[in-house]
Amino acid sequence: MSDYVEAAELRSALRRFLRRSEEIARRHELTPRQYLLLLMIRSSDERGGHTTITDLVERLALTQSTVTELVQRAEEAKLVTRAPSPVDGRVVHLSLSPTGRERLEHAFRELGPEREMLLRMLRRED
Amino acid sequence: MSDYVEAAELRSALRRFLRRSEEIARRHELTPRQYLLLLMIRSSDERGGHTTITDLVERLALTQSTVTELVQRAEEAKLVTRAPSPVDGRVVHLSLSPTGRERLEHAFRELGPEREMLLRMLRRED
Repeated sequence: MSDYVEAAELRSALRRFLRRSEEIARRHELTPRQYLLLLMIRSSDERGGHTTITDLVERLALTQSTVTELVQRAEEAKLVTRAPSPVDGRVVHLSLSPTGRERLEHAFRELGPEREMLLRMLRRED
Repeated sequence: MSDYVEAAELRSALRRFLRRSEEIARRHELTPRQYLLLLMIRSSDERGGHTTITDLVERLALTQSTVTELVQRAEEAKLVTRAPSPVDGRVVHLSLSPTGRERLEHAFRELGPEREMLLRMLRRED
């Protein structure tokens, strides 16, 4: 398979996955970016760490101002909460609210089969 | 690794790849979608097939009207050409213009290392 054919197949698979992910997020009253935000916070929680704006800039490949606005809107929508770090009051730690946690879980579960299909395709397991 | 951690790593890798891809496309005077359009046409050419609007709707996970507009703009920008199918005049086949072919090749080559990195990460080869 040529490099162009392989790259085109990768892009088609990504486009379909991202499209499906958007549909599912919106069905659970989340914007596509809110879904990613909640996923990143949950992932840090599971690793026993904290989530800060600085982390998110790196992990979401968005600018500082875009992430700041995304977090503000998510806080207004009662999806996340903010609290100052106990060791450095200038740093803010983000957590999921019960609503944020619940919507994330539902959307995440619904997207499971697509995620598996994408990973299998990328790893050429089928 | 939990499912949430794995999914978050996948999404971070995709975000970084897509961000980088956009930057590179724009540097070569292509919108991110024009880059994908040219890539799909090139990939069909290499497989000895033709590219139609209907194919692109499926492969880019976009609506018919979005693809139609994308193709029109790309034709105006002299990146692609249209010709009726010799076997069915109602069907239009898309081809790369010399300019489209050249910009695609340059952008594609520049994105090579990122694409390799993404695939390696997804396949856990490192």
